[in-house]
Amino acid sequence: MNKRYKLWEIGRQLTATAQGKLKADLVIKNGKLVNVFTGEIQLNTDVAIKLGRIALVGDAAVAIGEETVIIEAQGMYLVPGFIDGHLHVESSLMTVGEYAKATIPHGTSAIFMDPHEIVNVAGLDGMVAMMKDGATTPLRVFTTIPSCVPASPGLENTGSTITPQDIQTTLNWEGVAGLGEMMNYAGILSGDPQTCAKVEKTLEAGKTVTGHFPLTDTGAALNAYIAAGINCCHESTSAREALAKMRLGMYAMIREGSAWDDLPEVIKAITEQKIDTRLALLVSDDLHGDTLIKRGHMDYIIRLAISKGVRPVTAIQMATLNTACCFGMERDLGSISPGRFADINILSDLTQVRVEKVIINGELVAEKGSLTVPVGGYVYPEQLRTSVKITRKFLPSDFIVQAPLGTETASVRVVGVHDSNVLTTEMVEDLPIRNGEVELATEKDICKVAVINRHKAEGGMTLGFVHGFGLKKGAVASTYAHDAHNLVVLGTSDAEMAFAANTLVECSGGMTAVEGEKILALLKMPIAGLMSDLSAAEVAAALSNLSEAWAALGSPLASPFMTMSLLSLVVIPAIRITDKGLVNVYDNSFTTLFTE
Amino acid sequence: MNKRYKLWEIGRQLTATAQGKLKADLVIKNGKLVNVFTGEIQLNTDVAIKLGRIALVGDAAVAIGEETVIIEAQGMYLVPGFIDGHLHVESSLMTVGEYAKATIPHGTSAIFMDPHEIVNVAGLDGMVAMMKDGATTPLRVFTTIPSCVPASPGLENTGSTITPQDIQTTLNWEGVAGLGEMMNYAGILSGDPQTCAKVEKTLEAGKTVTGHFPLTDTGAALNAYIAAGINCCHESTSAREALAKMRLGMYAMIREGSAWDDLPEVIKAITEQKIDTRLALLVSDDLHGDTLIKRGHMDYIIRLAISKGVRPVTAIQMATLNTACCFGMERDLGSISPGRFADINILSDLTQVRVEKVIINGELVAEKGSLTVPVGGYVYPEQLRTSVKITRKFLPSDFIVQAPLGTETASVRVVGVHDSNVLTTEMVEDLPIRNGEVELATEKDICKVAVINRHKAEGGMTLGFVHGFGLKKGAVASTYAHDAHNLVVLGTSDAEMAFAANTLVECSGGMTAVEGEKILALLKMPIAGLMSDLSAAEVAAALSNLSEAWAALGSPLASPFMTMSLLSLVVIPAIRITDKGLVNVYDNSFTTLFTE
Repeated sequence: MNKRYKLWEIGRQLTATAQGKLKADLVIKNGKLVNVFTGEIQLNTDVAIKLGRIALVGDAAVAIGEETVIIEAQGMYLVPGFIDGHLHVESSLMTVGEYAKATIPHGTSAIFMDPHEIVNVAGLDGMVAMMKDGATTPLRVFTTIPSCVPASPGLENTGSTITPQDIQTTLNWEGVAGLGEMMNYAGILSGDPQTCAKVEKTLEAGKTVTGHFPLTDTGAALNAYIAAGINCCHESTSAREALAKMRLGMYAMIREGSAWDDLPEVIKAITEQKIDTRLALLVSDDLHGDTLIKRGHMDYIIRLAISKGVRPVTAIQMATLNTACCFGMERDLGSISPGRFADINILSDLTQVRVEKVIINGELVAEKGSLTVPVGGYVYPEQLRTSVKITRKFLPSDFIVQAPLGTETASVRVVGVHDSNVLTTEMVEDLPIRNGEVELATEKDICKVAVINRHKAEGGMTLGFVHGFGLKKGAVASTYAHDAHNLVVLGTSDAEMAFAANTLVECSGGMTAVEGEKILALLKMPIAGLMSDLSAAEVAAALSNLSEAWAALGSPLASPFMTMSLLSLVVIPAIRITDKGLVNVYDNSFTTLFTE
Repeated sequence: MNKRYKLWEIGRQLTATAQGKLKADLVIKNGKLVNVFTGEIQLNTDVAIKLGRIALVGDAAVAIGEETVIIEAQGMYLVPGFIDGHLHVESSLMTVGEYAKATIPHGTSAIFMDPHEIVNVAGLDGMVAMMKDGATTPLRVFTTIPSCVPASPGLENTGSTITPQDIQTTLNWEGVAGLGEMMNYAGILSGDPQTCAKVEKTLEAGKTVTGHFPLTDTGAALNAYIAAGINCCHESTSAREALAKMRLGMYAMIREGSAWDDLPEVIKAITEQKIDTRLALLVSDDLHGDTLIKRGHMDYIIRLAISKGVRPVTAIQMATLNTACCFGMERDLGSISPGRFADINILSDLTQVRVEKVIINGELVAEKGSLTVPVGGYVYPEQLRTSVKITRKFLPSDFIVQAPLGTETASVRVVGVHDSNVLTTEMVEDLPIRNGEVELATEKDICKVAVINRHKAEGGMTLGFVHGFGLKKGAVASTYAHDAHNLVVLGTSDAEMAFAANTLVECSGGMTAVEGEKILALLKMPIAGLMSDLSAAEVAAALSNLSEAWAALGSPLASPFMTMSLLSLVVIPAIRITDKGLVNVYDNSFTTLFTE
């Protein structure tokens, strides 16, 4: 990989190259330049590149020497490398290196990742490892420091805590772009000192505070949240919300992820209004490996925006210049202009966003959908590969729910889940008691759930019941479970639950589905129990196996592992379960399994 | 004046105010908000203000308490305070305090000043004094550090030198926004280490490098200049140049100053092209006191842009949000949105830009064209009031041009000036010799010029001849003479030249016109020999007197003092005169007075 220079390190060489006193390393000739500043398309335009940055845009004849590499772009469009302004690499279940391999051929040259999941498990060590992994790839990997670790203090055991002091320390690290999504909007609105301090330290360091404002309010609460200095938000699900944010000076990140299909609705803020779009961005937030393979990355999201009626140049601005501006990096990123990084996509079709060649830092890194350079090779440290700290072996008896004395049936609170809906419902059900144990009832679609603290050797757990997964037999388990990523086990028998749990403990994390004593499917995720070492295609294949196994066990859900991974996410109503207990989200407090 | 808080100091109070937990200091009610983000005009909009910043935009009812001041804005437009992105306060011949008094009632809330003139005379002490002066006013005075002091090393004696190290030191000062206009484009293009180092230090500090690129080239040279990291330029005189700059990612500052009528032509880059205008700015560069009184400031320039066909909201963006973005200050300035400074103008007419009320930092500071608060009061330090260091008294004999031996007439190089054109012409004229002295020739419109080093006690000088001023009698003198601001004296007799020079030495600088032993007009400029203590109206009256005096002495020029003030500006072709000699600008070297 070419070295990445700061502009002030090589400005003199760039000025010399523009004048032909030095010769360019690379010249792209005769392209149709998509100018994200003026919104124009400029024909017959060359770009001269030196030391990874752009020296000249226009007629580059003077900068061409004997050793200059020429890329002919006759008939092609030149657009800035695509930037994803908000995403979680961990959601792909892949390493940053594999994520880069999967996204670069689609024209992605920079991402702003929020390593919220790994930091919940492994603290700043996890973030550092992901940053190092990113640095082994041509992708420019910027990091926002997770702002809400733990996400729900007191309600669950987690692997780490990030303090305002941690944030202040890390803000000055190379590649750190700001503060990760401030999910604790309640803390901001109530003026919680620790929460506010994280925002304030970031502002004082001159960096960007990214947001997460899921309320539909566009009045006092939204104003209050923005007034705190929070710069962007990817949680709009209606055009009204996105428009309100832009009007109030907040970047509206329009999201289209594997499980977030927000764009078709939210994009109406642009297509149905004649507004200046400088505060509109496109982001993915969460993408799975199979989505990356089937759809692509920002190229797909831009294409989708265009298909909904956004002008192509405007859509491209939303994933290039506007994103750079959101993070105050427009002097380095987001445009094809002198001094900026030479991150350029060559497209054969603008409206279809057909990426033919990808140039990052002045280097051709992908062509016709394939990488042209070796990428990655980072090895995660051993400590991150032993993040499932449980040392014991689970027995079926560990999963017994003891019945209250003196009753024939037990009235229990059940967590009701719904397909393709993140909300849960609190149900109360009578369950049979046998031998002093409360039994599950597959005929009522009620199975047992255990959430096991995997950050400690002893692995304390909470037991409960869930409705809606459709399991008729077997058990499933995962160490990917927002936000503490404890070990969640779902099952129709105590023995299969113990087997599923032990399977994941043995391989240091992952996802599995078992039946009897047989492993139906297993994706090992040894890195922090969150990420596989495999490629996007391999992860996709493993997930496909897992889906089939879920189906074989009876579940009709579209994404049962995702639904399961949200069972512990105690910031979304109504009732959740963590390793510390059953949680009433509305009250932000524990509740009892038995109603009386 | 209200204290100016950083956002991170008061974010919690703003969020509380937006929710009504605290009450606003000021609420503006029912305005028509000009939204510079989306380009819309939002009706019936309130703005709630706390501690100088905006807490809420929308319905502010909840934030109104018993002590909240209410401004009713029914039928009025609310626009962000105007920002001038590039100007030299010294050009007004006024102090920063008086400049603020003159501009605030016109809706100016922030300026980016380049104190190039005072720093040439007095070094960083001069800059510090102007910054302190600015801090006594409600105007937000940001400073760019003069990049080219001396402007023409070796060709003239000046009062100071600014090194890359000086720049590095001062970049971190509060209120310093970046590097002042990099006039030495030749140094950038040639890679001169000292020149490039100034740019590089600024980039490394994360601040803005402002430009000055007067060439009409839009190819290699412009690319090279931008590739160095230079962010904006106010020197475009054609739409073609401005458009080229914006296409290359450079902010095009469209200028309309007292002596710069660039806007009508340059604005065609916007009115005749359907481009995204985010990189277009409006600036004044140089304004005189009488211009401020007759026309106004940014309000006039915005109005002029609108009259040329720019959409009102677009024109306002060009003097608010776009300017803030140019300096990376959009999180504080340039819009009416939560968290930003409460710098708001209330207009009764948008197209006419009729400013009724001016609010800066949450305080009503002007209404119907008059200040409503006391402004200024800064006293410049004594050392800046003794900047004309000459200790001797000039005699008529000091101004004698000794003739070469053995000739009857002298063939001399004459500096030819032209009305309303900054270029000079090198002329060669035969002048009579009497008693061994070369005589001037008023009948040929040739008078004598002396440029005297005023930065040293002994006051060394160069003598020469100029054509085109039209002086028939008397003498004129000024200590305001770009860029070294030496004492320039123009006259029709040696005695009157000595009298004019002595007059300015006695009052520590200024401008004067004399006839015989009588002072016809005098504007004392004791602060660095550049600025008066008087108000805009008083300065305008004094300049009017001076103009009348010039006319009485025979000059038909429109702005003879300005033309004279450029006689030493050895960066503009073709021939100039400094205290060190006659300069051929094309060669960047000294030439001889006599052709043989």
